Amino acid sequence: MGPKSHRLTQGKPAKLFGFAKFALLGQPRQGARESTSETKGSLGNGKTMKPVRNTLALMAIVLAGLATTYAQDALPSWNDSAPKKAIVAFVEKVTKEGSPDFVPPEERIATFDNDGTLWCEQPMPVQLFFALDRVKALAPQHPEWKTKQPFAALLEGDLKGAFAGGDHAILELVMATHAGMTTAEFEQIVKDWLATAKHPKFKQPYTACVYQPMVELLVYLRGNGFKTFIVSGGGIEFMRPWAEQVYGVPAEQVIGSSIKTKFEMRDGKPVLVRLPEINFIDDKAGKPVGINQHIGRRPIAAFGNSDGDKEMLEYTQGGSGARFMLLVLHDDAAREYAYGPAQGLPDAKLGAFTPALYEQTKKDRWTVVSMKNDWNHIFAFEKK
Amino acid sequence: MGPKSHRLTQGKPAKLFGFAKFALLGQPRQGARESTSETKGSLGNGKTMKPVRNTLALMAIVLAGLATTYAQDALPSWNDSAPKKAIVAFVEKVTKEGSPDFVPPEERIATFDNDGTLWCEQPMPVQLFFALDRVKALAPQHPEWKTKQPFAALLEGDLKGAFAGGDHAILELVMATHAGMTTAEFEQIVKDWLATAKHPKFKQPYTACVYQPMVELLVYLRGNGFKTFIVSGGGIEFMRPWAEQVYGVPAEQVIGSSIKTKFEMRDGKPVLVRLPEINFIDDKAGKPVGINQHIGRRPIAAFGNSDGDKEMLEYTQGGSGARFMLLVLHDDAAREYAYGPAQGLPDAKLGAFTPALYEQTKKDRWTVVSMKNDWNHIFAFEKK
Repeated sequence: MGPKSHRLTQGKPAKLFGFAKFALLGQPRQGARESTSETKGSLGNGKTMKPVRNTLALMAIVLAGLATTYAQDALPSWNDSAPKKAIVAFVEKVTKEGSPDFVPPEERIATFDNDGTLWCEQPMPVQLFFALDRVKALAPQHPEWKTKQPFAALLEGDLKGAFAGGDHAILELVMATHAGMTTAEFEQIVKDWLATAKHPKFKQPYTACVYQPMVELLVYLRGNGFKTFIVSGGGIEFMRPWAEQVYGVPAEQVIGSSIKTKFEMRDGKPVLVRLPEINFIDDKAGKPVGINQHIGRRPIAAFGNSDGDKEMLEYTQGGSGARFMLLVLHDDAAREYAYGPAQGLPDAKLGAFTPALYEQTKKDRWTVVSMKNDWNHIFAFEKK
Repeated sequence: MGPKSHRLTQGKPAKLFGFAKFALLGQPRQGARESTSETKGSLGNGKTMKPVRNTLALMAIVLAGLATTYAQDALPSWNDSAPKKAIVAFVEKVTKEGSPDFVPPEERIATFDNDGTLWCEQPMPVQLFFALDRVKALAPQHPEWKTKQPFAALLEGDLKGAFAGGDHAILELVMATHAGMTTAEFEQIVKDWLATAKHPKFKQPYTACVYQPMVELLVYLRGNGFKTFIVSGGGIEFMRPWAEQVYGVPAEQVIGSSIKTKFEMRDGKPVLVRLPEINFIDDKAGKPVGINQHIGRRPIAAFGNSDGDKEMLEYTQGGSGARFMLLVLHDDAAREYAYGPAQGLPDAKLGAFTPALYEQTKKDRWTVVSMKNDWNHIFAFEKK
């Protein structure tokens, strides 16, 4: 069966780790942003510019030559090891006109998982930190939480006790903190939280804890005519407020898990209210479903880091023509975290890269990135 | 409550006219297509072109001036009446840098209904013609349909008898013809049907029965930095195979009603199978929900033709800054169809523009297009 709707009241144990594995965000970083809308020939005078299309095409050729002259290494945070070489070889062959592997720009779809692929998901997914902070902030309005689990345990700082309730406890927590407000109000709550919250290990805003090599990769792909999408188990409305500024990925190219919303008039204003009911879980076999629902095309490149990304990579590989699949292996305890349990790395509750998945990367010839060996920088703040 | 999932077996009467009010399509028309992916600076050499960004910006200014010199009327099928003037005035003010109404390109989101707004929806929505033809094509594999309604009545050419079962009959029909195959198979079925099917009145492929003034409007908006989306009660996977070629709107910018899909391996190939279960009804109050789910931003311009578009236009108007809302009134029986029941026009079962909606256009200052008075051409084939 496809992804199901679960009502909170049913208490049905769902694939909640997928849902809990939301993505979070923080303060905008400048510089990584690309203009991503279809702006071309915006004359602002009520006219189109068709008659000069040939002239524009000629100019583009001239400019491309000029750009080549000035071009630099687009992936400076990647070592010159196998993964970087594989990425560049793939991009070159699919963008070379006349090549048997050439892919027209409209089909150059690349999808990226977020947690653990684009930003740090340890010691706990950022969206879960957000939910915990929201419980604390909302507690004065909920005196009943003092005796109600999982809230009571959380408010006493007992994380283990809070999560003893399993998926149902996490769902209670998510709904209490993510539903009941309008979409605009939720966006502001997310932005406000990210403006001050910091990662416990790196002491940086969460949005600074994004992987610099992957940000370079996003820019590089877009520079070569790709349309880049996020396809995350995290909450779609938790990522959108910052994805454009941090990753250069506009809201309409962010796909994630979601709760239902309802259109209504509040004080004469049309708004969407967030309901305590799951709409879609964008994880595992849900990822190809979400990709089809939002994009309507099969990606030609997909990037992930865990078992939750397996079906997305399989779906990507299943199309005809050149394909590229990559998984990030977290094997750098010094600069980030080390977890698998593939390759004998410590086990992780969330974001597991299992030995079975590692075997599949060999069988299906997926590229595996060793953070330790293949990336010379992990975070931009390291360079300061 | 938000949109619900309905299982076929529940037989729950849903907003099925919304669902039946799918959109259909046909052979590709050339010329209306715009390149819509984020291709810029595709060097195909594994390099980005950052260092020449300033040079590019300078060149863009020069080219924009050149383009202005050569510019033509972008909306030639529109008479110089109030609607055209209102459109141009809106676009000019939101694209003029420094204007108090200026809107940055990434926020220039325009949404278009499909049936009755971009293409002809009479005497019956195109997708319903498709479903009827599919029943005939599939009948040999379904001997049980000879005695089972609504199929038996349909196969005897008794449309009235077939639809006597109301919403449930339509849902049976849709599921029997739209589910059970992979997404790729369904895409091919739609393409094959459109390659030969013709509109009963115009004797043209359905995809030629698109409104030329609206196609010009789509191109004009994109030429001014807008991102154009289709937001239709019709089936998302029924529109995507042709929307790019006919409207210049890529698959990822098509939003519509959908059935659920499931990821699975078939003959070792990863595919998505279409299930006989409704996923989402993108009509009425569902349109703002679909817009938020797919786009994540409130549109600044919205275009429709019926009561099913009311909430989309309200939601669009509810944002701050300049907004533009437009409804097409079908008052041209000679060149297309005349139906309301607004303004004393004949009543329509599907795609109704009610007197109440007409009153709202006056109260909320929405633009109403009279097809008879405001469009000098309706279809491109008229010009031949």
